[in-house]
Amino acid sequence: MKVENVVLSVSGQSVVIIDQTKLPNHLEYLTLVKSEDFYEAIKKLKVRGAPAIGICAGMGLYVTAVRSGISEEPALLEFIDKTAQYINSSRPTAVNLFHALERVKRSAHSQSGKGTAAVLSAMRDESLAIQEEDVAMCRAISEYGLTLVKDGDGILTHCNAGPLATSVYGTGLGTLLLGKEKGYTFHAYTDETRPLLQGARLTSYELDKAGIDVTLICDNMASIVMKQGKINACFVGCDRVAANGDTANKIGTSGVAVLAKYYGVPFYVFCPSSTIDMNCKTGADIVIEERDPDEIKTKFYKEPMAPASVKAYNPAFDVTDAELITAIVTEKGICRYPYTDSLSALFK
Amino acid sequence: MKVENVVLSVSGQSVVIIDQTKLPNHLEYLTLVKSEDFYEAIKKLKVRGAPAIGICAGMGLYVTAVRSGISEEPALLEFIDKTAQYINSSRPTAVNLFHALERVKRSAHSQSGKGTAAVLSAMRDESLAIQEEDVAMCRAISEYGLTLVKDGDGILTHCNAGPLATSVYGTGLGTLLLGKEKGYTFHAYTDETRPLLQGARLTSYELDKAGIDVTLICDNMASIVMKQGKINACFVGCDRVAANGDTANKIGTSGVAVLAKYYGVPFYVFCPSSTIDMNCKTGADIVIEERDPDEIKTKFYKEPMAPASVKAYNPAFDVTDAELITAIVTEKGICRYPYTDSLSALFK
Repeated sequence: MKVENVVLSVSGQSVVIIDQTKLPNHLEYLTLVKSEDFYEAIKKLKVRGAPAIGICAGMGLYVTAVRSGISEEPALLEFIDKTAQYINSSRPTAVNLFHALERVKRSAHSQSGKGTAAVLSAMRDESLAIQEEDVAMCRAISEYGLTLVKDGDGILTHCNAGPLATSVYGTGLGTLLLGKEKGYTFHAYTDETRPLLQGARLTSYELDKAGIDVTLICDNMASIVMKQGKINACFVGCDRVAANGDTANKIGTSGVAVLAKYYGVPFYVFCPSSTIDMNCKTGADIVIEERDPDEIKTKFYKEPMAPASVKAYNPAFDVTDAELITAIVTEKGICRYPYTDSLSALFK
Repeated sequence: MKVENVVLSVSGQSVVIIDQTKLPNHLEYLTLVKSEDFYEAIKKLKVRGAPAIGICAGMGLYVTAVRSGISEEPALLEFIDKTAQYINSSRPTAVNLFHALERVKRSAHSQSGKGTAAVLSAMRDESLAIQEEDVAMCRAISEYGLTLVKDGDGILTHCNAGPLATSVYGTGLGTLLLGKEKGYTFHAYTDETRPLLQGARLTSYELDKAGIDVTLICDNMASIVMKQGKINACFVGCDRVAANGDTANKIGTSGVAVLAKYYGVPFYVFCPSSTIDMNCKTGADIVIEERDPDEIKTKFYKEPMAPASVKAYNPAFDVTDAELITAIVTEKGICRYPYTDSLSALFK
């Protein structure tokens, strides 16, 4: 399967994405042109997964600059800065979003004094480079991942960190997909990942399309499948890693990690090194996004599943303590606890 | 709130139950008359919760005997034995189901030689006694439960073990409901309990109706609320306790117990002593019911949430290891680890 989930048009006038909120029943493409389109697509999870969000945001900054039609360079640079800030406010937790916008913004400013055509050209190159680097990164991460497992292993996944979340292969799922290409047989157990069901809607879809044996489970079944000995390793992606290894990822990840520790199953985090935020000391510094309670109570359902008068708490992420993580697998290599040393070594 | 969820008609010709699959949007009553009605109601979770299933099955055996119109005592006793076996096959895990049917069956056989009227009269008394005993038991369990918590505590619940699952108060929720009557303020966090959402549909409904502060969460959010210090104790009911304290309860319970251990939160199981099966040595002897994968993939949803080609694994229960359980609270007192001693002491 080749998923082209974020594509910049040749003209630079638009970005086409797969609307991930419509999967797995409908494969629909969306054309994004205005800054509001990018903001909405990111905020409403039409594009999701930290790397894919970064790619989309970087291209979005370029597209909105092209379409602004501003002919004065200082005004264009000012517009770019403001637009970057606006798009960045769409989701608080994903560091790739900020990182990609900063890169494309810097590429624009690097051409200061050379005119708007040079500014736009640099932005285009930079936004495409972010995508190309992601392809290479996912491949490298997946190669490292394959050194951690063996043919026939049962792998538990949480949320979605596959091609739809990135470019190709993905982070958390890359090892399974690359392994499949190389002739490995894995047995994936996929947490459905409430409330937005990315595991059911996206991960099971991607793995099934790739011909990998996949069994969907509810999040609360992770304990029984580990206890039954079906799981040899847990694979997750992540949204942000703090300098000490504390990792923010989809809500429920920390619970999987606690279970893995209890049952003696290795727990691996897969991410590009750009996801590691050395300015963020520990998980305590990561702001956890709270989302609409109706995602729990009514979304997807024929009828509400709880009385209207009942409150719901809907944190989108949680932080997994560094000591619960067996290894953090990046394109630059595999880091192990204590992460304060192993992560900072990546950036030397 | 007074929930009358299983009521035997005065004529003995029917049992009226609340169809729990329709809550919280519709309060619908069902009239059960034939053995197939009772079998279906139990199998399809229209009546659920181990004690309520027992009450309903016991009354069901009586009602079907009354309605059989069999005038010869030996034929009636044979009919009763066969019907008990049939109703008992509706769900494999709940020991109360078997226990209640055995009691009503034995009451019938105890009148052997005295004629069908005596047989039926004994069955009626026994089936009503099961319900009356449940009311007294739930109250006693809840009184013991109140000795384990303090005013203002945050309590995590999983699945539903309230009045709908029993008679009044319930087991797992009884402490909260009795506490409310006595002026305690608790803050309940209720796992929605996938795939059938008993926590969302039933527990949040029952607690909210009773005026208790309740916040609904997805199952995978139990970890973050414990980490945030919001939870002072976890309360669950159970379907069967083995002689060593291993406890079968709704899928996901074992995961909550592992998390509670990790975060240092007490984990309490509430049940009538009839739920303790001293003939079942350990959790390994408990058969885990596997249910339809479509409960995960399609049930409740407007559209399927996973591709049709993807398998799903849907165990209805899991077994929580005895060493993860802080205490097992029964109507006869509070048992603590090691349970082999403390549970057998209950029956001396």
